[in-house]
Amino acid sequence: MIELYNYFRSSASFRVRIALNLKGLSFEYLPVPLTQGGGQQFTPEFKALNPASLVPVMVDAGQVLSQSLAIIEYLDETHPAPPLLPATALERARVRAIALSIACEIHPLNNLRVLGYLGKTLGVSGEEKSAWYRHWVETGLLAVESMLSNDSRTGSFCHGDFATLADILLVPQIFNAQRFDSDLSRMPTVMKIFDRCLQLPAFADAVPAKQVDAS
Amino acid sequence: MIELYNYFRSSASFRVRIALNLKGLSFEYLPVPLTQGGGQQFTPEFKALNPASLVPVMVDAGQVLSQSLAIIEYLDETHPAPPLLPATALERARVRAIALSIACEIHPLNNLRVLGYLGKTLGVSGEEKSAWYRHWVETGLLAVESMLSNDSRTGSFCHGDFATLADILLVPQIFNAQRFDSDLSRMPTVMKIFDRCLQLPAFADAVPAKQVDAS
Repeated sequence: MIELYNYFRSSASFRVRIALNLKGLSFEYLPVPLTQGGGQQFTPEFKALNPASLVPVMVDAGQVLSQSLAIIEYLDETHPAPPLLPATALERARVRAIALSIACEIHPLNNLRVLGYLGKTLGVSGEEKSAWYRHWVETGLLAVESMLSNDSRTGSFCHGDFATLADILLVPQIFNAQRFDSDLSRMPTVMKIFDRCLQLPAFADAVPAKQVDAS
Repeated sequence: MIELYNYFRSSASFRVRIALNLKGLSFEYLPVPLTQGGGQQFTPEFKALNPASLVPVMVDAGQVLSQSLAIIEYLDETHPAPPLLPATALERARVRAIALSIACEIHPLNNLRVLGYLGKTLGVSGEEKSAWYRHWVETGLLAVESMLSNDSRTGSFCHGDFATLADILLVPQIFNAQRFDSDLSRMPTVMKIFDRCLQLPAFADAVPAKQVDAS
């Protein structure tokens, strides 16, 4: 049985839950309560699994894997059906570029430890932190909107008509954006795909509110 | 001929230059001078190539690709020799996790536009910006050091004895860290691999100082 050390609200965890669901793989849900400062990600037990103190960590047949995108590529290689990447190198490059636009340009700027540093070390106010959050979400998602709306390969999902790595990254990011009241009105293509994804049980069952550790 | 829109000091550009060199692929170097605010990445011509206004952009047979990791995976799929990823899914997951630890946890926090926002919008001082920079580099690279030093699969390179995607990400990040006087003394494994990589012409020829737009 695959074990997933994760946290309901962590969007990197959310991504892996969607991928496991799309592959039809059952897994043991092991909650790692994250908090700024004293969260369980900093315990010696967890650091032995992942010295970076980050979730998710997936354990498959005793092998420990970290970094959500690496885990999802691994799942796609070891369980090829249904595929999470399209058939040609060029199409895969497009799907990965959309996914990485979220993973590298939006999410890292807005995670718990970065917001903690802004507040505690730099003395940035709550209002300024929210503005920071929305700035990076909106800048990043407008770029994704442009990548999607200006390309005929976009279908009912980010690429064609089945869910790929790009959709797996997109949906958790939108959940985060909504939590911080970001303005998503200028991203109609993104939001249409978001709604379409949530019609699939693989996405709907992975949302934060449905997890055992949701609070 | 492959075209590479890039900038000598951009570490995402540096990664793709290394990958092209490792594959023995020649390319046309098209400099995109980046500056905070009015850089050429914001011109309508460049935005038509990449709406995200980010380098690098690679054009291969008329097809436009963005996001350095997606470009490198594409190069590895379309030009398999020499490989930039190891042979098994589990090993590939490890190499990708090291690469993503740099691409997602370190680099995004320290690029030009983030430092610009800290200074201009949040009024953070130059000294505080340098401390921010070093904080994320050192936190992130110590995690990478731990991933490397506690794993028998680490060889003279990050994974075994040939250069992979992980080394391609590591070397530009160290160049950046050195520019900002980060403390790298606690990362002996990282630094040994860094030195080994730079013995290879593919890495040495890709360094910022050797590019036509270096200043």
